[in-house]
Amino acid sequence: MSYTIAEIAKALGAKALGDGAISVTALAEPADAGPDQLALATKPEYAEALPKGRARAALIWEGADWQALGLEAAIVAPRPRYAMSGLTAMMDLGEGWGEGIHPSAVIHESAVLGEGVHVGPLTVIGAGASIGAGTRIGPQVSIGADARIAEGGLIREGARIAARVRIGARVILNPGAVIGGDGFSFVTPEKSGVESVRETLGDQGDAAAQSYVRIHSLGSVRLGDDVEVGANAAIDRGTVRDTVIGDRTKIDTLVMVAHNVVVGTDTLLCGLVGIAGSTRIGNNVVLAGQVGVGDNLFVGDNVIAGGGTKILSNVPAGRVILGYPAMKMDAHIDMYKNLRRLGRLVADVAQLKKSVSKDGQSD
Amino acid sequence: MSYTIAEIAKALGAKALGDGAISVTALAEPADAGPDQLALATKPEYAEALPKGRARAALIWEGADWQALGLEAAIVAPRPRYAMSGLTAMMDLGEGWGEGIHPSAVIHESAVLGEGVHVGPLTVIGAGASIGAGTRIGPQVSIGADARIAEGGLIREGARIAARVRIGARVILNPGAVIGGDGFSFVTPEKSGVESVRETLGDQGDAAAQSYVRIHSLGSVRLGDDVEVGANAAIDRGTVRDTVIGDRTKIDTLVMVAHNVVVGTDTLLCGLVGIAGSTRIGNNVVLAGQVGVGDNLFVGDNVIAGGGTKILSNVPAGRVILGYPAMKMDAHIDMYKNLRRLGRLVADVAQLKKSVSKDGQSD
Amino acid sequence: MSYTIAEIAKALGAKALGDGAISVTALAEPADAGPDQLALATKPEYAEALPKGRARAALIWEGADWQALGLEAAIVAPRPRYAMSGLTAMMDLGEGWGEGIHPSAVIHESAVLGEGVHVGPLTVIGAGASIGAGTRIGPQVSIGADARIAEGGLIREGARIAARVRIGARVILNPGAVIGGDGFSFVTPEKSGVESVRETLGDQGDAAAQSYVRIHSLGSVRLGDDVEVGANAAIDRGTVRDTVIGDRTKIDTLVMVAHNVVVGTDTLLCGLVGIAGSTRIGNNVVLAGQVGVGDNLFVGDNVIAGGGTKILSNVPAGRVILGYPAMKMDAHIDMYKNLRRLGRLVADVAQLKKSVSKDGQSD
Repeated sequence: MSYTIAEIAKALGAKALGDGAISVTALAEPADAGPDQLALATKPEYAEALPKGRARAALIWEGADWQALGLEAAIVAPRPRYAMSGLTAMMDLGEGWGEGIHPSAVIHESAVLGEGVHVGPLTVIGAGASIGAGTRIGPQVSIGADARIAEGGLIREGARIAARVRIGARVILNPGAVIGGDGFSFVTPEKSGVESVRETLGDQGDAAAQSYVRIHSLGSVRLGDDVEVGANAAIDRGTVRDTVIGDRTKIDTLVMVAHNVVVGTDTLLCGLVGIAGSTRIGNNVVLAGQVGVGDNLFVGDNVIAGGGTKILSNVPAGRVILGYPAMKMDAHIDMYKNLRRLGRLVADVAQLKKSVSKDGQSD
Repeated sequence: MSYTIAEIAKALGAKALGDGAISVTALAEPADAGPDQLALATKPEYAEALPKGRARAALIWEGADWQALGLEAAIVAPRPRYAMSGLTAMMDLGEGWGEGIHPSAVIHESAVLGEGVHVGPLTVIGAGASIGAGTRIGPQVSIGADARIAEGGLIREGARIAARVRIGARVILNPGAVIGGDGFSFVTPEKSGVESVRETLGDQGDAAAQSYVRIHSLGSVRLGDDVEVGANAAIDRGTVRDTVIGDRTKIDTLVMVAHNVVVGTDTLLCGLVGIAGSTRIGNNVVLAGQVGVGDNLFVGDNVIAGGGTKILSNVPAGRVILGYPAMKMDAHIDMYKNLRRLGRLVADVAQLKKSVSKDGQSD
Repeated sequence: MSYTIAEIAKALGAKALGDGAISVTALAEPADAGPDQLALATKPEYAEALPKGRARAALIWEGADWQALGLEAAIVAPRPRYAMSGLTAMMDLGEGWGEGIHPSAVIHESAVLGEGVHVGPLTVIGAGASIGAGTRIGPQVSIGADARIAEGGLIREGARIAARVRIGARVILNPGAVIGGDGFSFVTPEKSGVESVRETLGDQGDAAAQSYVRIHSLGSVRLGDDVEVGANAAIDRGTVRDTVIGDRTKIDTLVMVAHNVVVGTDTLLCGLVGIAGSTRIGNNVVLAGQVGVGDNLFVGDNVIAGGGTKILSNVPAGRVILGYPAMKMDAHIDMYKNLRRLGRLVADVAQLKKSVSKDGQSD
């Protein structure tokens, strides 16, 4: 893979400066860059490291003086981070899987594969499954009966797609992702302690200890177009209807989405996020790492939750939240400052009690 | 799959009303229900959506007026959520795996398979393993040497069962579940900083930085009867004895149970729960999503912990807890209310200090 | 496997007492120990259970009176927990995988395997991969194109090693571990609400809702020597450079390490820890279960973070921390005590306000 600076700038819709004929074969951080690599000097503090490397060309910020930086060529993008999308797509080396259907794959005779589908070694495709054109499936993947994957997908090593799952176009599943595990849905013969606690916020009542019986998951999972699911993340089946992930929503590594959850479009669920059963998450939401959302809740559009936030009640649209339990981020920061002064407050009140009781005595 | 309303009511031990000969092929939420689907109108607020769908029959709550709801037939269950267990079992379409032993499975000649066992494509069964009658094993599963699975199990795609694991009857393992990863057990040559911190609650002492050596996991894992383990959940091997999960305990997606842990019977561990090494969890416990339990602790019977609770000390039986660190749920709710007023409290104390010092000056 | 007490003591560099010719075949806890098992009576409270079992020999603490404990032989180690490392290594039964290359493995003709490598059934090894001498690879593992594993590794069932990953010597990957999932890196065409929130700590500004485009992960993952990765843990690829795990660092079950993260040497990341993108973790760090670390942070050498700690800002070397957000452990414990008294403080202040206003009235 080799591109000239002029070719790259053209593909990105960016400006080329200097010798556009210089060609590069990879990207690199400034200090590590060799003469045939494009250095990523997108901020002054990154550019400082250019002399440590041997880059002749770099991606720079608007207004940077490429010649003063010692470069022979440069690409200027108004939003360099956005340019990284196109740039990394051009330079992606891929998985090295090759083409075609590997003879060791076990594909049911009733499965339908579109044009240009790649199926890796030791992958299993069940009865009635259908795979859209151009989808690339890695080694040791499972695709269940009657599952449907639209065109242009990338399904990596050991991903699991259960029976009847529906997957949109251009979806990426990372290694070990599970789409369609069982919903965690159980019921006791009589009212349980948990049901009492939910009503009373703390009292189990006199519920007898009981065993749970399983509510089977009859629903499946639907992923919209351009969804990405991280390594070892898991999205469970719905009970009666499907669990649904909206178009262009991105789900990170080790995220858990429970049964019946509906996630909107253009939403980010970061690493180790957990969303409990039947909760609805809006569009353009961002839940940072290790956020948890209780069951049967509603999180509105454009909500942003900071790392570790535990959401135990509904969140209106547009709110920025943090903490356990979640509160508005600015209120949380104020509260936390006060918390750090709590020792002094306790001392102040003790002192005041002494003063006031002395005052009282002097009455 | 098609059942009449009369057949379903009989199977559930419930009452059929209206035309018991109407037959249905699936369940549906009221608004989505077609004429051959049984609507789940188990509460007045769900029943409101019946006119949006085309259901002729529904599961309704005791005392509902099925004719006023526009139905031709109904099933009445005293606890409709409990009826869902039997109902969903009848309607479960299964995984579509077919029957028998797939020729691509790699089964050691010394493994013993009971009657009616299904083994999916590309599954590996190790030396000396034994599989109980009627157990259904999906594609690409690993079963280690000398592992034992009792009858009636369901082992889904890519589940991993390590050497010497013992699994009871009717156990369900979801895709990617790992039973028998290595315990996370390491030791330094000299006393470590962590050992000092545990003693002093905060002081590392002057422990030198050291490297860890591994303590091998010689124990395995035992799962009782009717245990369910969620997608990509992981239960680690014990060090000397086994890690143990009691009968009828249900473990959700992405839960982590560490080495030597003993979990009792009829317990629920919800999504992303983590239980550290050598901790004991009682019977009929419920740990909600993302709860964490420290190592070498004891959580008594019938404890209920709300979402995100971090348990850093022992919990007596019957307690309902919440928070980080865990406290009684009602105390936590009170504390949290006070926390939200903390800013005002700080202002009040500042004002009081001013008043009192003025009073003092006027003495 | 059978060793005499004398042999074991010699291998451990420990002292043998009593009849060194007694042989044992396994380890056991005192109450469970049979006559051919070595009981682990490493503390007085463990030794109490010796009479419940039938052990003839035990591992005991320095200064214990082996004869008074009713033993015929004993091994004395100055640090018994450390002795467990060698002892469990001697007694490890292994995975029972056998030797050699299983004929069902799919190994690319250009892959290079060192001497004594074991490859389990249905494992896939991609083009240009190289496997060091003596490495043992279990069933159903994926090894991507151009991946490199050094000598003496143990790669368990269904682990996933992506293209171009570099793995050091004697590394252990547990079942389902994923090395080289995609980095979670996306960008919006214009400045996003999250970017505003980061600058303002709470205000999204007027960012329009946008869709994300993907930044491809061109980097890979490098694991040092003697690294261990737990079951279903996942380490994501870097964006331009590699994600790096230092020598002898141990990563537990279901841990998530994001793109570009650099973890030092001799560090422990316990169960369900999550480390967000581009963060650096020092040497000899311990992050207990469910700790989270935000992106682009720095955690210094020798930091110890208690269970559930959420690290939202840089942490200097040597600090012992706890809480959400993280603070010094001793300060957290003080604060928590004050928090539990908060109700009384509120009541005190209310009482003081009454007293002072009365005083005021009496002026």
